[in-house]
Amino acid sequence: MRLASLLGPDLQALKADPEALQAAFDEFHPEDVAELLEDLPIEQVADLVHALSSEAGADVIERLSPERQRVVLEAVDEERATELLTAMDPDDRVDFFEELEEDEVEAYLGRLDKEIVEETQELLAYDPETAGGLMTTEYVGLRPDMKVWEAVEEVRKIANEGEAETIYYLYVVGYGEKLLGVVSLRDLILSDPGQELADIMTEKVVWARPTDDQEDVAQKIARYDLAALPVVDDQDGMLGVVTVDDVVDVVIEEATEDAQMMGGVVPLEDAYFSTGLLEFVWKRGAWLIVLFLGQLLTATVMEQNQSTLRATMELAVFIPLIIASGGNAGSQSSTLIIRAMAVGEAQPGDWLKVFGREMVIGLALGLILGLMGFGRGWFAGETVDATALGIAVGMSILAIVTLSTIIGSLLPMLIQRAGLDPAVSSTPFIASVVDVLGLIVYFSVAQVILGMWV
Amino acid sequence: MRLASLLGPDLQALKADPEALQAAFDEFHPEDVAELLEDLPIEQVADLVHALSSEAGADVIERLSPERQRVVLEAVDEERATELLTAMDPDDRVDFFEELEEDEVEAYLGRLDKEIVEETQELLAYDPETAGGLMTTEYVGLRPDMKVWEAVEEVRKIANEGEAETIYYLYVVGYGEKLLGVVSLRDLILSDPGQELADIMTEKVVWARPTDDQEDVAQKIARYDLAALPVVDDQDGMLGVVTVDDVVDVVIEEATEDAQMMGGVVPLEDAYFSTGLLEFVWKRGAWLIVLFLGQLLTATVMEQNQSTLRATMELAVFIPLIIASGGNAGSQSSTLIIRAMAVGEAQPGDWLKVFGREMVIGLALGLILGLMGFGRGWFAGETVDATALGIAVGMSILAIVTLSTIIGSLLPMLIQRAGLDPAVSSTPFIASVVDVLGLIVYFSVAQVILGMWV
Repeated sequence: MRLASLLGPDLQALKADPEALQAAFDEFHPEDVAELLEDLPIEQVADLVHALSSEAGADVIERLSPERQRVVLEAVDEERATELLTAMDPDDRVDFFEELEEDEVEAYLGRLDKEIVEETQELLAYDPETAGGLMTTEYVGLRPDMKVWEAVEEVRKIANEGEAETIYYLYVVGYGEKLLGVVSLRDLILSDPGQELADIMTEKVVWARPTDDQEDVAQKIARYDLAALPVVDDQDGMLGVVTVDDVVDVVIEEATEDAQMMGGVVPLEDAYFSTGLLEFVWKRGAWLIVLFLGQLLTATVMEQNQSTLRATMELAVFIPLIIASGGNAGSQSSTLIIRAMAVGEAQPGDWLKVFGREMVIGLALGLILGLMGFGRGWFAGETVDATALGIAVGMSILAIVTLSTIIGSLLPMLIQRAGLDPAVSSTPFIASVVDVLGLIVYFSVAQVILGMWV
Repeated sequence: MRLASLLGPDLQALKADPEALQAAFDEFHPEDVAELLEDLPIEQVADLVHALSSEAGADVIERLSPERQRVVLEAVDEERATELLTAMDPDDRVDFFEELEEDEVEAYLGRLDKEIVEETQELLAYDPETAGGLMTTEYVGLRPDMKVWEAVEEVRKIANEGEAETIYYLYVVGYGEKLLGVVSLRDLILSDPGQELADIMTEKVVWARPTDDQEDVAQKIARYDLAALPVVDDQDGMLGVVTVDDVVDVVIEEATEDAQMMGGVVPLEDAYFSTGLLEFVWKRGAWLIVLFLGQLLTATVMEQNQSTLRATMELAVFIPLIIASGGNAGSQSSTLIIRAMAVGEAQPGDWLKVFGREMVIGLALGLILGLMGFGRGWFAGETVDATALGIAVGMSILAIVTLSTIIGSLLPMLIQRAGLDPAVSSTPFIASVVDVLGLIVYFSVAQVILGMWV
């Protein structure tokens, strides 16, 4: 990679010739430059950022990790930091501020222009995981009586000044920035220059409220194949737009968060290798301890049934098998339902429908595994009647697989209904619940069956 | 919703007046119309599709589920079906054909124009989960010596005819459709009408090969915030483009597939409620049976250690707790690594780094849980020395949590290295492996500790 070699001995020479450096950087996508800057010594990064134009520097800084952004903006001189923050896109600037302490934010804001401070404070007010937190305020808003040729001129001017994140959708706004319609750049190019925007705009606009969850925003953009989604207030006044590229990141981020929760980990803030060992111990340990405390119940159930075990030692043989069968069946149904709710295919209101389906499926799966369990149990009977042991094992598996399948599907819906993220009913969590249940079912069934037999 | 009421008594009236029906439909996004058509009686749908223009009909049909597409195209008359297929986007047409039997595809192809047949067969050759399978062949390719004003005219013409999925990126191609550069519509609007495209195009273009996996395509588009990604052959010849809206769907689909695999389910083809009960029993039962067969090993290990259990009944009490602790720890580390590999943060080559980290984390977590286990074990000692039992339980937990953490992180990397999807090392799979291991560790540790003590 030429960019890397450029940073060896040539760097000193290039620094003296900012234009050559700028040209060298222009050859690469800001994302690639950012990746390189993540690992360079900080003095070199500061030198480079000083040599780049504010716009090019801001483009790169927007793509750095929050920790690196902080280090870089502290390493360059105050004036440069202010220029860079001014040149950054409003949504990226706010993302950066969200990682800082309040007094740090104040210090930076004190050096920025009034207009930018207002814009930033407005965006900072929204939860980062909502439409308001994702949106940028740099959109193109045009009046309905504007002619197509005027609009083209206006777009050209705005694009030239780099003052909009997307110019492919133009929003037609009336009094109080009320959203009236949308005109795509495609519509503009296709229309007669003398027409008014009001005549060519699409009035059915898909929009979001600033407080909408980012997952809903992503679903809307995916559903309608949008490049950008306008965010409007209660009076339909335009506040900003969320662009599809941010949504791709949101979808990936949400899927990662869900996967981690479902694996029984408090979601990580950073990438795997960027997360410190102590943070890992805390984020995994917290859940492991909770699960361990729950699992202690299994020891209690075992203690209470020691006399049964002592009488029929063969029963102990099947304990791991039985509780694992329940855990596996429960983890399947919980995963399916959590994911179906995440992509909007199922709602908590569907619980009865889900219950019906999962009961039938659970019974079918329980019958299959129960038959296999019967075979293995029958094979193990020594001190006790082989058929009785087989029936006790098989029936316990049938019961626990059916129960676990139902519990695994309904628990996430119950948690969602309670306003929590259903992914907290992680696979290990479901497994813990059904482990205890599995033991109780097994000992109860075994006592009845063996009691009847002997 | 007016659309729904429209389908009541008014439908018969509107059918007689196609223009009024078309106007009524124009008010709604094709996605919403498609959702409605999914559940309507098929005769009504056929009537509606006949009344719509081919383009409007194709727009709606592209958004239906594959089963519904089939039903609708079979319900309308042959001529109409041919018109609709001709009007569909090439990538959507191919997606539909991919669900059909070969002879059905032949029958449809026999009625389409030669040009469309060739385009379709070319796309059908690619695996649906690759760049080739995702791309559309309808892109705008322009010559490098074309003037900006000529390009604007050309784009206007193409957009008017609806012959390109995106007109926001224009690809500059030379002899043999070789990709030379890209010009955005934004560049075009900003440039002097007399300039040549060669002067304003960006030569550094991010591209993909047709055989690239859809997950890599999605990562590239997300990384570089692209609206479209050109797909080129070995000689850099343009084959088509993948647009960002398809990628949002891919990301959601891949996350769902991964989640299902990690939950121990063979990934579903359809949405939760669209999947038949029999398919569910098969896709869940297959894994449950495999896991059950693996879990049978736990019964064997238990049988072999019955004498130990008989001598010290308290040992049985902790079996569920110990194997669950291993399963939970393993499910955490496997989830983290599988997800880190899915988003490109970790590669199988990082195994040594991962091993080091997970060993330290596993030991820390093992110590915490081991101490808790010691307390509970010590509390349970009756027929056996309480301290010895506590130490046996605590040390077993320390060992199995550490081992499970390491196994959970390395197994997915090994599976990825073997060319399989790492998500097959699902949470239940890891749990099954470490259950058996947990029992072996527990009995070994207990025998040594209690043997030394007594």
